[in-house]
Amino acid sequence: MYNDIKVIGFDADDTLWVNETYFRDAEHEFAKLLAQFETENKIDQELFKMEMKNLPIYGYGVKGFMLSMIESAMELSNNTVSNDTINKILNIGKEMINKPVVLLEGVEEVLQALSKKYRLILATKGDLLDQERKLEKSNLTEYFHHIEVLSDKQESNYSNLLKHLDIDPENFLMVGNSLKSDILPLVNIGAKAIHVPFHTTWAHEQVTVDEKTNGTYKTCKGIKEILNYL
Amino acid sequence: MYNDIKVIGFDADDTLWVNETYFRDAEHEFAKLLAQFETENKIDQELFKMEMKNLPIYGYGVKGFMLSMIESAMELSNNTVSNDTINKILNIGKEMINKPVVLLEGVEEVLQALSKKYRLILATKGDLLDQERKLEKSNLTEYFHHIEVLSDKQESNYSNLLKHLDIDPENFLMVGNSLKSDILPLVNIGAKAIHVPFHTTWAHEQVTVDEKTNGTYKTCKGIKEILNYL
Repeated sequence: MYNDIKVIGFDADDTLWVNETYFRDAEHEFAKLLAQFETENKIDQELFKMEMKNLPIYGYGVKGFMLSMIESAMELSNNTVSNDTINKILNIGKEMINKPVVLLEGVEEVLQALSKKYRLILATKGDLLDQERKLEKSNLTEYFHHIEVLSDKQESNYSNLLKHLDIDPENFLMVGNSLKSDILPLVNIGAKAIHVPFHTTWAHEQVTVDEKTNGTYKTCKGIKEILNYL
Repeated sequence: MYNDIKVIGFDADDTLWVNETYFRDAEHEFAKLLAQFETENKIDQELFKMEMKNLPIYGYGVKGFMLSMIESAMELSNNTVSNDTINKILNIGKEMINKPVVLLEGVEEVLQALSKKYRLILATKGDLLDQERKLEKSNLTEYFHHIEVLSDKQESNYSNLLKHLDIDPENFLMVGNSLKSDILPLVNIGAKAIHVPFHTTWAHEQVTVDEKTNGTYKTCKGIKEILNYL
């Protein structure tokens, strides 16, 4: 099944290192800052709505998340939130950007083994600067040929990526934790995909059972398992 | 001089379309919003300082600019700026993102001619989503093989780009309006460069005479002139 593979794309956040956990922590901090105005549940919901409203203009990444937190804080407080709280929101975001990179188990071993046989690329929809910084902190730079930043991870984005890499879909394998972003679009364009779930999934990345059934891919419990197939 | 060229990289903002003008307009709007606190000159200076302070963590692009405007507004007002003003700052940024794309004279003609003989790429340090959107609005998509987003435009970034494109420096020509970002780093790594100045240059992109002298490159008054050499 994987004999034709030439290039392997790895998703970064929550596939190589911890990320979603930091967003959940930030949301919790944000809710605490606004506790005088609303319940945590309501604040979570409104922030998520704001992020979805702003996603078409801001795209993915921490900076858009910071801007949505600020806008949401003003809305939730009926424009009475203090400058002090807005400063604290900016600091939540800056701290996220400066978080240490915590590798998931087995990552370095897997990359070390595979980089000898395949061209590896990092394929992420985060912010380029942010992902370059994380890659540097991770000490994994040597294993990757380069970073590909995608503005979104839909079929058309992956088709463009393959065109840009000058390879056919059957020569490309994607490894990632998000069924919606890293697996299904690849299967649908005739490329290969291996799903390595992370324990936490952002609501925006969740798929319904219906969406799940249109293709075949493998699922591995941990990233080390992919070595059984490659 | 240009016989070996295989790939031409075009800077986007202020090389293909108007951009810096929108930032100057936004800064002027920002200064008007804060006029009760400081003179326009002081506000300009403080915003620029804030952008430079935040550049290592936010990188280039409108979202980082928006976050720096908000932080600067709080600082300039001693944390007394109103939620209404912060909302207006967010709107300045959102309007920048939604601005129409105004092509510079001769751009389409040049790309049309060169795309038949060379592989053209868009090489920009803005935000990927923002640049994809501008490229789509510009109707120039068909001329470019793909977009390369660089987190910065220093020698090391261009060296990585050439490695990623699998070409030697002498086969690469960069065309752009910024001596600091689009020309000097290329000349220094042995690639070719043609400078097409724009009437407005951001202070951060300005170079001193000393920096200018370490290499050779051509300067064209308008982008159409580059056809004389290619």
